[in-house]
Amino acid sequence: MIKKGILIIISGFSGAGKGTVVKELLSKGDYVLSISSTTRKPREYEQHGREYFFDSRDEFERMIKDNELIEWASYCDNYYGTPKKFVESNLEQGKNVILEIEMQGAIDIKSQYEDAVLIFITTPKVTDLKKRLEKRGTESSDIINKRLKRSYEEVNIIDKYDYIVINDDLEECVEDIHSIINAENKAAARNITLKQKLIGEFEELLKGEI
Amino acid sequence: MIKKGILIIISGFSGAGKGTVVKELLSKGDYVLSISSTTRKPREYEQHGREYFFDSRDEFERMIKDNELIEWASYCDNYYGTPKKFVESNLEQGKNVILEIEMQGAIDIKSQYEDAVLIFITTPKVTDLKKRLEKRGTESSDIINKRLKRSYEEVNIIDKYDYIVINDDLEECVEDIHSIINAENKAAARNITLKQKLIGEFEELLKGEI
Repeated sequence: MIKKGILIIISGFSGAGKGTVVKELLSKGDYVLSISSTTRKPREYEQHGREYFFDSRDEFERMIKDNELIEWASYCDNYYGTPKKFVESNLEQGKNVILEIEMQGAIDIKSQYEDAVLIFITTPKVTDLKKRLEKRGTESSDIINKRLKRSYEEVNIIDKYDYIVINDDLEECVEDIHSIINAENKAAARNITLKQKLIGEFEELLKGEI
Repeated sequence: MIKKGILIIISGFSGAGKGTVVKELLSKGDYVLSISSTTRKPREYEQHGREYFFDSRDEFERMIKDNELIEWASYCDNYYGTPKKFVESNLEQGKNVILEIEMQGAIDIKSQYEDAVLIFITTPKVTDLKKRLEKRGTESSDIINKRLKRSYEEVNIIDKYDYIVINDDLEECVEDIHSIINAENKAAARNITLKQKLIGEFEELLKGEI
């Protein structure tokens, strides 16, 4: 029997470097990234089933109705959501599935998948968030300030996550996440089958004596 | 402020190789072994404060009365126990303290120290336990059978532990325990101070704006 994979939910402050961390985790090949479904048009380089599943409005609304999405939201007149089937079939195959998602979505998912592992990524210092956002050079200082204020609101609920990982050195941060997933794999709650197997072996070995 | 260390409780089936695993963990220098107190006489090579704290009966009974022991038991007319002070002062200094102890003691300790990490060590197969006990050559087959029967009774409660680690390859088993402790260090519940620190930094950075 294949041991089920772990659903890993990753969130983090804007500027904490989630994207890079996730990319690095995926490059090691031990993880699969959950692919979202969207009704927005694909960009030139985007492929159905790689960046997104590009679905029609009708199809998306049918998925909502039939409870086929783990979570969904509407943004700028388009739907975005996480198809249950992709996530669950990968978990069943023993693959660890990463879902990069914002905090409210993450907490909602934990109520549906209580064995999901919620990881929150932060920089060591808040001033580092600001520096990284400025360094990107893609956002005005107004937008950067808005993002920092949003992070300030979010900080109050970071203890709803299972783990808080500091992204100071990228390699170390990725190693920490590997450690967490390795440890979670040893959690007694995920090893009921092992217990059953050992009981069976004791009974076989001590046959007639117990 | 120093971050508190983690109290690590290690148990395992007789023959699972706990002793070797603990020795290997200690050799890496990241852990301190809890030293027990006993009223039995020291053997020639034993030193007070290294193998055991060798205490008088009066002193031991005073410690029981004054609630200075995490757990204690009487065995062959001698007392054995775990002094609270040694464990707690090391934890306060940020050191991870290992306590190798049998299952009932381990579960009792979890009720006193709910943030203790309980790790159970097993071989991959039950027949490996038997092989290892036979290979030691120190116990009669009668004693080996008694130990296996005791392990069979214990297997029913291994899911009271937080983690179950398989000792097949020693290095891998030790690495798994390192992973667990590293992961536990990132647990949100152990990082309340980090959250407070981040809140303070956001308030400093966004002064006048929030």
